[in-house]
Amino acid sequence: MIYQRVALIGLGLIASSMAHAMRRDGLAGSIAGTARSAETREIAREIGFCDDVFDTAAEAVADADLIILAVPVGAMADVSREIGPHLKPGSTVTDVGSVKGAVIQAVSPHMPHGVHFIPGHPLAGTEHSGPRSGFAELFERRWTILTPVEGTDEEAVAKLRAFWEAIGAHVDTMDPDHHDLVLAVTSHCPHLIAYTMVGVADDLRRVTDSEVIKYSAAGFRDFTRIAASDPTMWRDVFLSNKEATLEILGRFTEELFALQRAIRTGDGEHLFDYFTHTRAIRRGIIEAGQDTDAPDFGRGVKR
Amino acid sequence: MIYQRVALIGLGLIASSMAHAMRRDGLAGSIAGTARSAETREIAREIGFCDDVFDTAAEAVADADLIILAVPVGAMADVSREIGPHLKPGSTVTDVGSVKGAVIQAVSPHMPHGVHFIPGHPLAGTEHSGPRSGFAELFERRWTILTPVEGTDEEAVAKLRAFWEAIGAHVDTMDPDHHDLVLAVTSHCPHLIAYTMVGVADDLRRVTDSEVIKYSAAGFRDFTRIAASDPTMWRDVFLSNKEATLEILGRFTEELFALQRAIRTGDGEHLFDYFTHTRAIRRGIIEAGQDTDAPDFGRGVKR
Repeated sequence: MIYQRVALIGLGLIASSMAHAMRRDGLAGSIAGTARSAETREIAREIGFCDDVFDTAAEAVADADLIILAVPVGAMADVSREIGPHLKPGSTVTDVGSVKGAVIQAVSPHMPHGVHFIPGHPLAGTEHSGPRSGFAELFERRWTILTPVEGTDEEAVAKLRAFWEAIGAHVDTMDPDHHDLVLAVTSHCPHLIAYTMVGVADDLRRVTDSEVIKYSAAGFRDFTRIAASDPTMWRDVFLSNKEATLEILGRFTEELFALQRAIRTGDGEHLFDYFTHTRAIRRGIIEAGQDTDAPDFGRGVKR
Repeated sequence: MIYQRVALIGLGLIASSMAHAMRRDGLAGSIAGTARSAETREIAREIGFCDDVFDTAAEAVADADLIILAVPVGAMADVSREIGPHLKPGSTVTDVGSVKGAVIQAVSPHMPHGVHFIPGHPLAGTEHSGPRSGFAELFERRWTILTPVEGTDEEAVAKLRAFWEAIGAHVDTMDPDHHDLVLAVTSHCPHLIAYTMVGVADDLRRVTDSEVIKYSAAGFRDFTRIAASDPTMWRDVFLSNKEATLEILGRFTEELFALQRAIRTGDGEHLFDYFTHTRAIRRGIIEAGQDTDAPDFGRGVKR
């Protein structure tokens, strides 16, 4: 047991997965939970991954040693305002938001003296959302990034790190702004691009939706998987990581135009060199253990 | 047995997978093969998925009833010129190129009277290439599109369709130009976009390659997988499906700019509506049986 009582604010994919993992490994004495939607609370009660499900966040955090804000980034300010007065001195508040700068701005002003706020971001998820989508293994071998601000209690950080490691994650710490830039590259922009391509496909009159669906080969299938992620979460990500996202998108369109130009002018050498180079990055990812080398394009096929 | 003798011109992922499937199901009396590279021929001999491996395409096609052109699109013209004079009257020539209009232009002039040329495209593949990457199940439940031109012998088309179905594929026929547009949407443009995003990530000085690799969450990991595909094949795809690719890329950048603008102006409603809409397309793909609903972002995690 790492924390006596853990409170989950929000009971979607991430929170429910954390609850399942805490249960499996006995990491929490007890788990309190709450969600804004009555339906979500009802499902959580039915599945039973919390010991107590409360109607309000204020009730849920009472006596908790670790409070996990697992709501969309845009809801962080309101939730923090609500729980602030009810937090136990010495407790730790963390979050799982995909953006860190904006979350720090939203949450910090509401944290009372003596409460440790340690922003966090588990780089894990699926295209599913909601309390039924959680599973204990979600974080295994995935990275969780903590972005503690200057002067944060080191013991509290070490304890939170141990908690994430017990759940199965690798843990790193990073500056919040740098986190937001790294994630703009590795996650936020790829998501926006996938959403866009899926939208274009749907919009094209001369190709029917059923053709798009039927012949969705590897490339596009992966895009639709990405583009099926939770719309509220992603709206908030883009609105709250505006600067880094727009910077990376600017570079992206610049490069895309260069490749478009190579296609238009028939510059095969440019294309070949570019495509050869990107292969090397893929090899790096496999070597870093973040994906397997098994051919995935034939997914669903038993080998 | 559907064909007495099948000749594979090119011995990469697609050809070797076809050979394994033919062997498994006894679809060919015997299999001849050839590849331009001596190393590839040597590996094919070592693995033994052909009965005979020849040094030249001219030798390989002698006496074959079905000749499968499984070389990059840019090599189709040369290969066709070479084999044309050696083709057996009544034999069928097909190909597996990702573009059909350009292949028809490249191959047709070299086909002698009495030989049935039936262009084809199996929508299957992995990010691996070469003779060692093949496996018999690659085409199972995937679509193969045949694009026979006006006046093609119906019996020859029916036989080729039966052959692909025996290999495990669903088969459809389509107009070549329409094929090229559909594929620009579902495969060619998604690939180019993935290549571009991976290139941008690599190019960004303030984020190190090792950070990109370490924190490559779901979105980016899927992109690198796509961007690891065979560079020669993809160069040829873009050069030979120029018109449709550039049209779709034009629409893509237009939509992307609209989303970028929504981010810049803080138009959350636009983003939310867009992201909600793309979810529906994903559901269609799952219902069409082209992908599973299992959460894949936690891939590599045993459940």
